[in-house]
Amino acid sequence: MENRINRRKFLQVSAAAGLASSMIKSGKAHAAKDGKVRVGFTGVGNQGTNLLETSLAMQDIEVPAICDINKDNLSHALDLVEKSGRKRPEGYSADPEDYRRMSEREDLDAVLTATPWELHVPVMVDAMNKGKYACTEVPAAYTVEGCWDLVETSERTGMPMMMLENHCYQLNNTAVLQMVRAGLFGELLHGECGYQHDVRYLGGKEGKIGANGELLWRGKHAITRNGDLYPTHGLGPVAHWMDINCGDQFHYLTSAATISRGMNTEIAKRFGKNHPNATREYALGDVVTTVIRTRLGRTITINHDTQSPRPYSNMTKIQGTKGLYVELNRSVYFEDLSPEMHRWEPFDAYEKKYEHPMWTAWQKISATFGHGGTDYLKLRSFFDAVKDRNPVPIDVYDAVAWSVISPLSEKSIANGSAPVEFPDFTKGKWKTRKPCFGV
Amino acid sequence: MENRINRRKFLQVSAAAGLASSMIKSGKAHAAKDGKVRVGFTGVGNQGTNLLETSLAMQDIEVPAICDINKDNLSHALDLVEKSGRKRPEGYSADPEDYRRMSEREDLDAVLTATPWELHVPVMVDAMNKGKYACTEVPAAYTVEGCWDLVETSERTGMPMMMLENHCYQLNNTAVLQMVRAGLFGELLHGECGYQHDVRYLGGKEGKIGANGELLWRGKHAITRNGDLYPTHGLGPVAHWMDINCGDQFHYLTSAATISRGMNTEIAKRFGKNHPNATREYALGDVVTTVIRTRLGRTITINHDTQSPRPYSNMTKIQGTKGLYVELNRSVYFEDLSPEMHRWEPFDAYEKKYEHPMWTAWQKISATFGHGGTDYLKLRSFFDAVKDRNPVPIDVYDAVAWSVISPLSEKSIANGSAPVEFPDFTKGKWKTRKPCFGV
Repeated sequence: MENRINRRKFLQVSAAAGLASSMIKSGKAHAAKDGKVRVGFTGVGNQGTNLLETSLAMQDIEVPAICDINKDNLSHALDLVEKSGRKRPEGYSADPEDYRRMSEREDLDAVLTATPWELHVPVMVDAMNKGKYACTEVPAAYTVEGCWDLVETSERTGMPMMMLENHCYQLNNTAVLQMVRAGLFGELLHGECGYQHDVRYLGGKEGKIGANGELLWRGKHAITRNGDLYPTHGLGPVAHWMDINCGDQFHYLTSAATISRGMNTEIAKRFGKNHPNATREYALGDVVTTVIRTRLGRTITINHDTQSPRPYSNMTKIQGTKGLYVELNRSVYFEDLSPEMHRWEPFDAYEKKYEHPMWTAWQKISATFGHGGTDYLKLRSFFDAVKDRNPVPIDVYDAVAWSVISPLSEKSIANGSAPVEFPDFTKGKWKTRKPCFGV
Repeated sequence: MENRINRRKFLQVSAAAGLASSMIKSGKAHAAKDGKVRVGFTGVGNQGTNLLETSLAMQDIEVPAICDINKDNLSHALDLVEKSGRKRPEGYSADPEDYRRMSEREDLDAVLTATPWELHVPVMVDAMNKGKYACTEVPAAYTVEGCWDLVETSERTGMPMMMLENHCYQLNNTAVLQMVRAGLFGELLHGECGYQHDVRYLGGKEGKIGANGELLWRGKHAITRNGDLYPTHGLGPVAHWMDINCGDQFHYLTSAATISRGMNTEIAKRFGKNHPNATREYALGDVVTTVIRTRLGRTITINHDTQSPRPYSNMTKIQGTKGLYVELNRSVYFEDLSPEMHRWEPFDAYEKKYEHPMWTAWQKISATFGHGGTDYLKLRSFFDAVKDRNPVPIDVYDAVAWSVISPLSEKSIANGSAPVEFPDFTKGKWKTRKPCFGV
């Protein structure tokens, strides 16, 4: 099986010579002869296991190899594959870089990572260097250098990398995408989004705080980093609606953070006010607000709010010259369509009317899987791309444009909300590239 | 009647030697002997007429003089007073500065302005210089110099100036104020607010665009100014909740504006695409987003959105270490109180339980007046302060701190979202002043 992506197709997306996406099935000549996709998994903790189980429900997916330094997680994952009726995969846990040995395997078409954030870039770079399709959980990277590593490796090797941003696949967000493309909003002006999720204590195994008040890997980021550490859930859909990297581009941002209180209060409440993690200092402000301005003069507000008591929300909003959509009250208003002037109308009928074909096709299957079915959809998109040697629908340029919010917001906050310019990871190609998600 | 405010009381508020507000009726010795307040009105267009009618419904208010350069408006206003059973006021319309002649009158206790924005500062400065209580519609000023003029005049003359920000008096916002003061939110972290109101065409007499596509005074600001031109409706309540000028202070802001489309499209739609105002350029971006950081490390996002098709909204939100309130879905969540973890509960019961005493006292009367009763409440607060020679509840420091958002946001936008520091109009007194609104 020829692993390198069809070069002509890659250029089509990169330089916008044409449309290409996982939904265009023109590359079947390159698919594996038995119609299967062979994926190596790296990181099978909570989300990695979710993704593995979802993948195992697809008959055309094989999992010959799994890597996790945590032997309990690894063993559980190997069992899952075996129980699904497949051959027990080979496990890799010899050392923290054993993913490099796994990716040497000739039989892998793709490598997926759901490791802690620190490992996303090294695992992806290694996978692409070995000629594998690569896909990573969010965020793809959290340093500017890491972003460049991903882009340069993908360009040099010709291997696509996908970021598994499930929010782009949500029923509501894909319907809004169709509405944007149908022109209902007119010219887009402004978006709002965020990640508003109290992830301090989620049972002790995930989130920021462990069962004894120790800091899990996600919590450790809060000690030294002050910025929007998790921007892609909110931003992904808005970036697609605004054709970021395909006609528009993020130009600069400013960020501001509040004081940090939530980690201290939560640990004090659960583990006593003298627990060392209840009294230490955390850099991460409880609420971080970032405002992006794009090259075409649109704005996007992003909210990061992960350590205060609150219901989950994304507060998504998109507004154009003809109307707007607001997620929180599930409402829209369109100047030319809404029955009453300046009155909200329910989103429901629009969501139904503009249901994206990917949902129409996959709804019954996907709805039983994680994150409202979006885990199924994002994996299916990736696997289809691998199978057909197509470009991926959320590619390396999307991945880094959305992920780089983190280090840029940290820089802005450290400099009193000074504006920070985005690197042009596309090197000018954003002007002519065409959208490749959900087309 | 001694017009100058009781000096001791002014210092109480200014330097926080104690509590003082319109609700503290300790200064009655200074009230006019007949218990009446005599107010001169400047500007009786739409909102000026609303305020006049509301004032005339109060038996203790006399209106001996009215100034408006527009003779139709003036005549209508004089008629209104006469029809209310009062003596026909003297009218002032000799020239654009005839308010200076009106304020010479010995019989006026106070001067109120509801003129176009340009006249707020000159009318207020003149009134205070003549020893009158002064009150202005929003915004109080739209230049930094204008803000300083108001502060320095009030300090030099000892005369209080109130800004008539009705949103501070809303039933929901005053209930939230009580909830903040009762500690439900814990330590405040972050607020969001805005003015989201399509004011392009409001029948041709108010708003931005006149009946023939000409630009009304409000529309003319859109030609040259790009910033948050109308910040106080959203910001006022949030500033009160956060004790701005009474323990905390705005430190700096950044602003970003979208492209400008809404004025052109609206005029083209209503008056043809060749109308000169349909083809001209407007500086004002359709959506302007401002983020403030305070001295205590809180943040506030303000949205200005006045020329796009949309339902009216303020999108108010306040969040603390223990919970939050969101206006759009009329919901709250409090860690220690809400029945279900991480689930919204309706605001209704809280709004009732924490109803502010001013509403309990005035609800039946005020509800029949403009802007949901808030026009009544704000005027009543002002008149009570005048009557009792008390400080005013939304004073000159509040007025300028909220109004100065406009010029500072213009400066930030002109400099690519660079952060802009707030002047300290209180000259350090914010650290020790005590709240005087709704206490």
